[in-house]
Amino acid sequence: MSRFRPNATKSSPARAHKSEWFLRINPLGQLPVIDEAGLVLRDTQAILVYLASRYDTCETWYSRDDPCLLGQINQWLAFADDITRTASAARLHAAMFYDLDVESARAGAHRLFRILDEHLWFGEQEDRAWICAGTHPTIADLACFPYVMLSEEGGFRGRITRLFGAGAIVSTYRGIHRYAGDLSGRSRAAAGTRVIWPTAGTSSRPSPRADAR
Amino acid sequence: MSRFRPNATKSSPARAHKSEWFLRINPLGQLPVIDEAGLVLRDTQAILVYLASRYDTCETWYSRDDPCLLGQINQWLAFADDITRTASAARLHAAMFYDLDVESARAGAHRLFRILDEHLWFGEQEDRAWICAGTHPTIADLACFPYVMLSEEGGFRGRITRLFGAGAIVSTYRGIHRYAGDLSGRSRAAAGTRVIWPTAGTSSRPSPRADAR
Repeated sequence: MSRFRPNATKSSPARAHKSEWFLRINPLGQLPVIDEAGLVLRDTQAILVYLASRYDTCETWYSRDDPCLLGQINQWLAFADDITRTASAARLHAAMFYDLDVESARAGAHRLFRILDEHLWFGEQEDRAWICAGTHPTIADLACFPYVMLSEEGGFRGRITRLFGAGAIVSTYRGIHRYAGDLSGRSRAAAGTRVIWPTAGTSSRPSPRADAR
Repeated sequence: MSRFRPNATKSSPARAHKSEWFLRINPLGQLPVIDEAGLVLRDTQAILVYLASRYDTCETWYSRDDPCLLGQINQWLAFADDITRTASAARLHAAMFYDLDVESARAGAHRLFRILDEHLWFGEQEDRAWICAGTHPTIADLACFPYVMLSEEGGFRGRITRLFGAGAIVSTYRGIHRYAGDLSGRSRAAAGTRVIWPTAGTSSRPSPRADAR
């Protein structure tokens, strides 16, 4: 992916993503955007679909030959957007004092985490290692997990990332705990896939997409 | 598609999509959902991706061999979701007195329609007949247009569908006007594609997805 030259668009405090020059690139005033030889794409999930379809020679991250899996992946991409609108919104409020209904955002995030948690817990019972069916991670994993892992920054009372610390911790989200613990601690036996997840505290500010308001 | 047996889930006034039995199918409490031989899929756009990938033998509605087009389609699927959250929310308020900030929803819808309108207007200049590049409509067209066409029911001051009536009407959304007028009035020379769009007044109540709150 070194063919992409990053363009650091400061969302905070400059709010460059709302400036006139940026709105000509993305009239929605949201980050991220990619521009590859004139193909300008906005929307995190659309960009993931494009990059995986174009550059994943194994065709496992977005399995275009498997309609059932495609449907599942897109279902969880939509879920990732819901996480952005709730957990990441809470982070924006906590980190940058965005004026929004933070209690509602936190409650929404917890509701989503419970759904994801249950999905992962059942997945464990069925030997499903990833969010979607199959033996490989997909862009659904890439889309959902960063914001789950960073959600502690949204000021949740029951922290997510504490679940991954040492000691006997009663896990609110047991499925997420197991899954993310596996991901961050060990490499998985999946076609040499190595995924580096962010953890709360390593990001100095909410990520670009979450700034897109 | 006759293999699907519809299950009429009354969202209003029964709010069956929030009932215990339905939450076991979709814990998000949203419509629509499909269940095909055990594959349960939620989310309108994910369902479109699945149906097109599985049943479109021409592979034009979701062109899986064209990464650039896939990226574009997914970008506009996300845009369709934004339309649902604004224009359709306004319809819910107008038709069923949903408690929401309707002025904000209407303003958001107008902002989106302006973006779509400009995109379509520029498309005209470039001989692009559909939302995305290429010679065929895609599921992006299917996703975006129904709610644009029905948005009048959201109580907009400047109606959308009046633009398609007889007489000299100053069109606020010239690109949308032309595009949708073509779609509803005439068949297009696109591989025998015939698309039937809803028009305001033909639906007695907001469609299932919009009820998903």
